[in-house]
Amino acid sequence: MALILALDFGGTKLAAATVNVGSRKWLRYERRLSPANANASTDLEIMRSLIYSLLEDTKPAAIGVSFGGPVDASTGTVRLSHHVAGWENIPLKGLLENEFGVPAGVDNDANIAALGEHRFGAGQGYDSLFYITVSTGVGGGWILNGQPWRGAGGMAGEIGHIVVDPAGPVCLCGKRGCVERLASGPYMAQNAREILEKKPPSRQGGEVLRGLVGNDLTLLTGQLVSEAAAAGDDLAKEVLQKAAWALGMGIGNVANLMNPQRFVLGGGVTKAGEDFWQVVRQVARETALPEVDFEIVPALLGDDAPLWGAVAIASMTIPNL
Amino acid sequence: MALILALDFGGTKLAAATVNVGSRKWLRYERRLSPANANASTDLEIMRSLIYSLLEDTKPAAIGVSFGGPVDASTGTVRLSHHVAGWENIPLKGLLENEFGVPAGVDNDANIAALGEHRFGAGQGYDSLFYITVSTGVGGGWILNGQPWRGAGGMAGEIGHIVVDPAGPVCLCGKRGCVERLASGPYMAQNAREILEKKPPSRQGGEVLRGLVGNDLTLLTGQLVSEAAAAGDDLAKEVLQKAAWALGMGIGNVANLMNPQRFVLGGGVTKAGEDFWQVVRQVARETALPEVDFEIVPALLGDDAPLWGAVAIASMTIPNL
Repeated sequence: MALILALDFGGTKLAAATVNVGSRKWLRYERRLSPANANASTDLEIMRSLIYSLLEDTKPAAIGVSFGGPVDASTGTVRLSHHVAGWENIPLKGLLENEFGVPAGVDNDANIAALGEHRFGAGQGYDSLFYITVSTGVGGGWILNGQPWRGAGGMAGEIGHIVVDPAGPVCLCGKRGCVERLASGPYMAQNAREILEKKPPSRQGGEVLRGLVGNDLTLLTGQLVSEAAAAGDDLAKEVLQKAAWALGMGIGNVANLMNPQRFVLGGGVTKAGEDFWQVVRQVARETALPEVDFEIVPALLGDDAPLWGAVAIASMTIPNL
Repeated sequence: MALILALDFGGTKLAAATVNVGSRKWLRYERRLSPANANASTDLEIMRSLIYSLLEDTKPAAIGVSFGGPVDASTGTVRLSHHVAGWENIPLKGLLENEFGVPAGVDNDANIAALGEHRFGAGQGYDSLFYITVSTGVGGGWILNGQPWRGAGGMAGEIGHIVVDPAGPVCLCGKRGCVERLASGPYMAQNAREILEKKPPSRQGGEVLRGLVGNDLTLLTGQLVSEAAAAGDDLAKEVLQKAAWALGMGIGNVANLMNPQRFVLGGGVTKAGEDFWQVVRQVARETALPEVDFEIVPALLGDDAPLWGAVAIASMTIPNL
């Protein structure tokens, strides 16, 4: 029975799990927070201790790794982490293969989650899909012909930075009206804050949202915007609908360009409720040509998507499996 | 020496050519206009006479076909023609294979031209590229991993109908601000006409454009807009730059999503001169993330791209080639 070791370097948390090939049940599973002053060395030390704790005296047949940042998947080298210092050009695949003497596969979290959903989640049986995570950022990963499509330079999937409204607000990337600028949790919070700060007393809405943060607008989050919208707050609904519009417009454009069978949506913002999903689906359907068919479905693996994707990429390194 | 027969059902013209496998020089080449009252039967009859005239008593090893309209490439069945009546569900591959007793490959003109540029033109040596034709319409074809990517339902490549300006003018497809609505030749002509019709006398520009059509604005074409822009007409320049902006925005978005090595641009509008290309390249570069590399280059095969693509798809049907 071949044992797979799956690792998730999540930026703020580290997780490791083991599973037998073909099983859908973790044998062992451990998770730790990455310390506030983490760097690549401390993260690697914590992960090493997680691994030895999990493996005890067993030996994996292969290791799969999800990394929360840009990775050169062909060499398994981390380019950098946006959260943790010192990850520049760390040959993570090489380090693991040397230490454990087995093959390893490494990719970024969006590509890995796409692979996880494809092999074990909402994408099972679909040869072409685009996985989108809508959370603190907006990113995506492709499966085409049943295989990951990473792009010529490993940069494919950046739906967060396609422009859907050239007259929209300015994004951190410098452009206006990117999907991420309108649909990510932190930007939804910022959009709500800006409307609340400028709102004339005559305008309806915002009361629920203000109540949720005790009038301290610095405490606003995307999740609170969703909660206020669900409670009927008109201002929160407007912000959430704009997010759903941006995502739906992005998806419709992607459908016209690539015509995948499925879009699989994960991440905290996609838990905003039926109204959000209804707008996403309607705008995507109106944006795509009538002849372009697709489905938009929720991700199934939740927080474990990176670990299950890591299982999938590890399995791909085992010959004749 | 294996002989390839290449056919191009272009909507308003029909072309056929023969070439030996591996050669880049047509053995025979003939072209005819499709009659004004053409239907599928007359087009097929004209093509049949072209074929027999070309082949004489030789026999091809395979046949490749470019069709100017939606095709189910997996079965080689034409779905319809936007120009010629009666093409609905014609099994073109089957008809040719039955009549000539050799394998045939059929695909739509954008996919075929992408394949042609990839094997014989501006895409040689590039495993991932997006071919875009900007002409009476705007369409595209993908090469990924060295193979055509047609999408789950054969609809991939529709860059003409991705939205780049949701506040823009209404397109025939019903949406606002599609790439095609801003960048195709006929829509450029319409945009120029509308500005000229509403223009106050005080506003500069348009004189060259008016002169080119002797003040009869119904005679405006995309090509005349390009010519007037090249001659310094400010109004024509504005229309052409908006077209280039839309195309550059579309390309930048596609680069973020798919990260291909190259964009290959063909079609009449792309002959509009250096200013047009400069705007396309600049807007695409600003729209794509800094880490996303790509080149934008002109197509090399011109009007013969469909025929050379037909040669490529025919070659793919010959085993062990």
